[in-house]
Amino acid sequence: MSDEHEVDEGSEGEPKLPKKALVVVNTGNGKGKTTAALGVLFRAWGRGYSVCMLQFIKSTTSNYGENKAAKKVGIEMISLGGGFTWLSKDIEKDKALARELWEQCKVKISSGEYDVVALDEFTYPLAYGWLPTSDVVEFLKTRPLRTHVIITGRDAPQELIDYADLVTEMREIKHPFADQGLKAQPGIEF
Amino acid sequence: MSDEHEVDEGSEGEPKLPKKALVVVNTGNGKGKTTAALGVLFRAWGRGYSVCMLQFIKSTTSNYGENKAAKKVGIEMISLGGGFTWLSKDIEKDKALARELWEQCKVKISSGEYDVVALDEFTYPLAYGWLPTSDVVEFLKTRPLRTHVIITGRDAPQELIDYADLVTEMREIKHPFADQGLKAQPGIEF
Repeated sequence: MSDEHEVDEGSEGEPKLPKKALVVVNTGNGKGKTTAALGVLFRAWGRGYSVCMLQFIKSTTSNYGENKAAKKVGIEMISLGGGFTWLSKDIEKDKALARELWEQCKVKISSGEYDVVALDEFTYPLAYGWLPTSDVVEFLKTRPLRTHVIITGRDAPQELIDYADLVTEMREIKHPFADQGLKAQPGIEF
Repeated sequence: MSDEHEVDEGSEGEPKLPKKALVVVNTGNGKGKTTAALGVLFRAWGRGYSVCMLQFIKSTTSNYGENKAAKKVGIEMISLGGGFTWLSKDIEKDKALARELWEQCKVKISSGEYDVVALDEFTYPLAYGWLPTSDVVEFLKTRPLRTHVIITGRDAPQELIDYADLVTEMREIKHPFADQGLKAQPGIEF
């Protein structure tokens, strides 16, 4: 940790480089993995940091609200792969797609232009074995010193957890869909 | 659930009233309780909903980023009680303060002006017994049908969990402070 990455926390001026960029993982079967990442991006944006979110699940009503909010304030939100479909039943095709999308993430992260990059629902290609977690970890070790990376999604592989600095499991204690047969609520759930 | 609370999810126009306002609790010893609430507020704001956050812990560097972000976009963020101190070592004083701050929350919630009201770190006065959880639950039952309420903080009382619709426990799996002796990182952690 060299001096040029020290932060003057009391300063109100230009954003400073972080002391050590973190790899953050939000995993588990509960709600809040993506919204917590979104909250971090929003907060960092509030401080003047440069942030973006790359979404591994194609844009649906389930991320309609966050895309709209991000667009309103100019936070970059990139839906990877356009109309792609996971689970093509052709494992080689899925692997090729995962690798292609991961290349796009690598370009963003290694650009050095971002303070925080969120890879939303990125655990899925890892958990399904389409992308070797070891490749991801090796790349993350080479990321620019300024760039925090947040990875969200269920079933984060142990190898990623071992490398990450901050890991939280969002555990479902109670869910209105299951318990009350309610539909998802716009504004509060997506 | 009457028709006037039905939502046309496909509509791009004016925000509609939710089908059923939820009580959401983010609890546990991990990160992401407040940031997930913030993410929900930001997303709801993106949809044109009216939202606010009432903070039970006085403004510190730990919520500097979120206050700044909220201010930038006009999301109402209210630090309750100004320079108050919990743990005054006078239990009656703490109880009186908790009740006073709760009255401010009740006014906001029952105004009917909000789609989402977040009560940040509100579990503490409940967990410490300064405010009866039963009073809070009884009040929440009377809230306007449009108003979702999100409550964050460790040690949410069981009575609140029993009443809530959606409860998530944020569990710490790995934390850089404990494991690496690092200071909190601005932009990513506050």
